[in-house]
Amino acid sequence: MHTPQNLDRLRVVLVSTRNSLNMGAAARAMSNFGFSDLRMVKPYEPSFREARSAVGGAAVLKSTREFTSVADAIADCTLVVGTTAVRTRDLQHPVRRLETGARLILKNLDKGPVAILFGSEKFGLSNDDLSHCHWLLNIPTRETNISMNLGQAVAVCLYELIRDPKMARQKEKAAEVANSGDLERITILLNDVLRESGYIDLRCVADVDQRIRRLVRRL
Amino acid sequence: MHTPQNLDRLRVVLVSTRNSLNMGAAARAMSNFGFSDLRMVKPYEPSFREARSAVGGAAVLKSTREFTSVADAIADCTLVVGTTAVRTRDLQHPVRRLETGARLILKNLDKGPVAILFGSEKFGLSNDDLSHCHWLLNIPTRETNISMNLGQAVAVCLYELIRDPKMARQKEKAAEVANSGDLERITILLNDVLRESGYIDLRCVADVDQRIRRLVRRL
Repeated sequence: MHTPQNLDRLRVVLVSTRNSLNMGAAARAMSNFGFSDLRMVKPYEPSFREARSAVGGAAVLKSTREFTSVADAIADCTLVVGTTAVRTRDLQHPVRRLETGARLILKNLDKGPVAILFGSEKFGLSNDDLSHCHWLLNIPTRETNISMNLGQAVAVCLYELIRDPKMARQKEKAAEVANSGDLERITILLNDVLRESGYIDLRCVADVDQRIRRLVRRL
Repeated sequence: MHTPQNLDRLRVVLVSTRNSLNMGAAARAMSNFGFSDLRMVKPYEPSFREARSAVGGAAVLKSTREFTSVADAIADCTLVVGTTAVRTRDLQHPVRRLETGARLILKNLDKGPVAILFGSEKFGLSNDDLSHCHWLLNIPTRETNISMNLGQAVAVCLYELIRDPKMARQKEKAAEVANSGDLERITILLNDVLRESGYIDLRCVADVDQRIRRLVRRL
């Protein structure tokens, strides 16, 4: 895994989150991608208790700090970034697409702590929440369906931060273009022929079907 | 939004999915990122029914086709890619990191339909499922916590396919480095001074706190 420096300086701040599954999903994505500092502002308490006590819950949730205001949650941060599904809602703020914004966040993590704010499932970040933000981050979704699930939005933002741009530029040779239906027919035919000939019985290999299928696809 | 051509040629294939929320989350991510062809192989039926009938469920789920085998679900595809959390499980298959693999998938979509297979929540793809795959896709998670939530894994894979590499290379000027705690203290002070001076009372603006906060952050 490509691990940019200073990932521990990133604060994921969930504001007024309602759903315990979303809390758990956000924590899990953080754990998957190497982040640890989760902060909750005014979470719905029964859900927060449920998420914390869930069996197999991410360790990230155990160390999650709770705050009563966005101001307190982000007090130590030198950059505060809000997330929004809407591109034009708040013209007071610059809106950056995730691909561009993530580069800026990574640069800022070299200098000090950075917070990314995610609003509630239903209403997103309020204007008061947004007034704490230096700029807004926008995940490039389709115009007709812009609103993402909270846990998925957190996962996609964190992935963009840890993905390795060098890997994307690696050249790959073009892949073969045989139809899977054809390949499966060849596989079945080959299987039949080998079985008729007694070859398969001789070998007594349990997963012979899978082996032949793999062989055909590699050719 | 950057829209690569032929996104409608991508088949998202969920194999033996158990959880209706994961089915819904996969469909929602597809809808967010502009994909429409969802296929289910042996889904857990009560969950599939629940997911399809969910209020506000993604339209993608309504048109989802159900199959009894992976072979049938991928018969029209010229490239079949499996997803795996494990890097070394199946040495018969090349494993590509998402950043690299996505470029190859996009190239293949120009030629014909491509399937991405996601295994069950608990066991992932079986060896039999994997034998239908040309190669495997791996999301670069941290070694100590490789297993992703299914809905989040789908979202991250689809995001990588639609993200615009050009946007990531755009230069941004370095951001300011004032601590948020300091900014909030300045905001409160400015607010007090303006209030003492009678300026705020004169204006009668309801959201004056937010306006001042935004002003300070833009400076």
